[in-house]
Amino acid sequence: MKMNMNLSPNQNQGQQFRFAPHMVKIPSNPIFHLLPKLNEPGFISFAPGAPSSDSFPYADIEEITRGLLSNNPRELMQYGSTEGYAPARKSMAALISRYGLSPKPGEVIVTTGGQQAIDLLCKLFVEPGDVVLVEAPTYSATLQILKSYRAVPISIEADDDGILPGDLEEKIKIFAPKLIYLIPTFQNPSGRTLTLERRAAAAEIAGRHNVLLIEDDPYRDLRYHGEHLPTIKSFDTADHVIFLTSTSKILCPGLRVGAAYAPEALIPALTVAKQAADMHSPALPQAIVSAYLDRGLLDAHLSLLCGQYRRKLDAMLDAVKRFFPEGIEYRPPQGGLFLWCVCPERLDTAELLERAVDEKVAFVPGEQFFADERVTNTLRLNFSNAPEADIPKGIEILGKLLRKSLAP
Amino acid sequence: MKMNMNLSPNQNQGQQFRFAPHMVKIPSNPIFHLLPKLNEPGFISFAPGAPSSDSFPYADIEEITRGLLSNNPRELMQYGSTEGYAPARKSMAALISRYGLSPKPGEVIVTTGGQQAIDLLCKLFVEPGDVVLVEAPTYSATLQILKSYRAVPISIEADDDGILPGDLEEKIKIFAPKLIYLIPTFQNPSGRTLTLERRAAAAEIAGRHNVLLIEDDPYRDLRYHGEHLPTIKSFDTADHVIFLTSTSKILCPGLRVGAAYAPEALIPALTVAKQAADMHSPALPQAIVSAYLDRGLLDAHLSLLCGQYRRKLDAMLDAVKRFFPEGIEYRPPQGGLFLWCVCPERLDTAELLERAVDEKVAFVPGEQFFADERVTNTLRLNFSNAPEADIPKGIEILGKLLRKSLAP
Repeated sequence: MKMNMNLSPNQNQGQQFRFAPHMVKIPSNPIFHLLPKLNEPGFISFAPGAPSSDSFPYADIEEITRGLLSNNPRELMQYGSTEGYAPARKSMAALISRYGLSPKPGEVIVTTGGQQAIDLLCKLFVEPGDVVLVEAPTYSATLQILKSYRAVPISIEADDDGILPGDLEEKIKIFAPKLIYLIPTFQNPSGRTLTLERRAAAAEIAGRHNVLLIEDDPYRDLRYHGEHLPTIKSFDTADHVIFLTSTSKILCPGLRVGAAYAPEALIPALTVAKQAADMHSPALPQAIVSAYLDRGLLDAHLSLLCGQYRRKLDAMLDAVKRFFPEGIEYRPPQGGLFLWCVCPERLDTAELLERAVDEKVAFVPGEQFFADERVTNTLRLNFSNAPEADIPKGIEILGKLLRKSLAP
Repeated sequence: MKMNMNLSPNQNQGQQFRFAPHMVKIPSNPIFHLLPKLNEPGFISFAPGAPSSDSFPYADIEEITRGLLSNNPRELMQYGSTEGYAPARKSMAALISRYGLSPKPGEVIVTTGGQQAIDLLCKLFVEPGDVVLVEAPTYSATLQILKSYRAVPISIEADDDGILPGDLEEKIKIFAPKLIYLIPTFQNPSGRTLTLERRAAAAEIAGRHNVLLIEDDPYRDLRYHGEHLPTIKSFDTADHVIFLTSTSKILCPGLRVGAAYAPEALIPALTVAKQAADMHSPALPQAIVSAYLDRGLLDAHLSLLCGQYRRKLDAMLDAVKRFFPEGIEYRPPQGGLFLWCVCPERLDTAELLERAVDEKVAFVPGEQFFADERVTNTLRLNFSNAPEADIPKGIEILGKLLRKSLAP
């Protein structure tokens, strides 16, 4: 079997692996391939959706870890519970309670990043050919996961305020989907936020049609303007919404601590799926995050973080206004990590990236975020990761390249 | 759809989830359900395949972690590489080099325990209905994983020296399997070790028939008698063997650091599979293990560990000889964590476990380790986890229960 996967040059040295055909069609995330370049000195990266390394509470983490290892490390070093280290389940339940929900620890399973929860839910529910409704654009890793389970992702129509409930219901009737996947707040990659009314409608429609809705909400604490909105889960009277959270964006991603708050009857099934996947996540990172949350350090940290990121967003919006040519459309987000730009249709942002990388600037071309259509004229700019002073420089370079590409 | 999964009492509260049917058939690992009981005071557990918590090098881990967090934690806290934290890839390659192999770091991918590598390989290769050849008995979690991918596990015939190469070849011809899964050294659960000649034969047969062979070898360093044998991978001239290792049994399982050494052309594919599964494993546990291995602390630790476990094995063999009735067959293993017992066919070890738990002793009934036949008269005894002094007490209790069950 011939592979079109992004394989190393060795792939053709006589060895023909009999991959499952659907796996061969999954492209590697191009951001990951850029990573080595991005660390070169002088490179300005708006590419990965990464929080700022300067923001991580190193001293607190060091002190907490020292305490954990000097106190009672037996439990942290031995095999542990698949559902999560018990104190971490409690702390993640408490984190979720800050969002106006009231999970019991028994309704929470700790995962390796929020992303593993998406994988486990697909493992549990998706059979080849099953439809999963998503946004257009949506998180590219979710599309990778869906392909790995041979799901058919179908996009729900949307405007600047998120998905259209009427189209959600229509698509449910047409496609009888197994799952609905939404990022309602400061969406990745579009930055948009689903309105209150549509959140209520999404929960109601999912419940009425007996479709599970995955609410992936890792950015909600990163709000720089406007008021917090209730979760979709808060409208979930029919118990059909699985709420995913993560500490990757609000604390640090390297510890890989996320969680799913699911109907309690689903937890044993998620546990079986996770037993098969990796038995359990390492306990030490869970314990560090748990202790950090329990100490009540998060609010002050978030307030610093939001201050920093708001300034960076403002710097980016200011630079985009100054340096981008006319015809590039964007909508300032109220929070999160991303500014999403729609360029004139004749512009191919994958080509633009090649030229940008030559000038030591990176972003993510939008194509990978679309499930069922080829969209080549969008791009995602992350504003959290680059130093504030680099933002105008990088945007100026991109602006020049955009002008050149768009020149008649 | 009705579920026969091991779900909570809430499962029937009106909510009917539309699980993928094959997932509903996967039983939760019964060892995990026993875990809360096993921690009750006075309980003697021969159940989980866990190393002794007393054996973990707490002081070294504490000192290493302190150093890591005071030095350069930026990389550990930010998003990292899917293939593994770079120093950990090197250290795991060096660990594998101790086994007479010579992997390059680029041929190694770090996984959340060795188990995740099995999951990723199945994700990459298995399509519903594909046959995977396994041992009888074999590691129960692997059977869980295979079921989650709708693989059909078929057992290779074996004797006390492991699988019969003739039958391996025969089954390859009949079933055209996608994968072969073997635990050649101190196998879980049987304790047996594949002979040198059969290792060479297995590699040769897999290569000649173009079938990938997964060599899962986490116990090899725990040898108490006899000489180390070369890996199957060392005979792999056709580059068809994927060697899995883990630090769970030789260092501590809670850090969840395992690795796969695979043909280099497979690494990008494994990376895509892992990107979809959990993006990457947390870096801190990888860094701790990496530093521990790099300091050259493992040999001295293994020597202590093997001394302890040999004494525990001897204590168990001695007690079994004294307290078990005639008709219980077992073969002293040369290493590893398990003593495997075959009882007269009329004995049901699942029933025996219920009575044993009442008397505060636990083991694992063998049924879950068999892929394609119902075997109810075997049991697995772990000897590494219980305190040495408890071993004769627990075995005496089991011996009494066995006598009672076998009495005419």
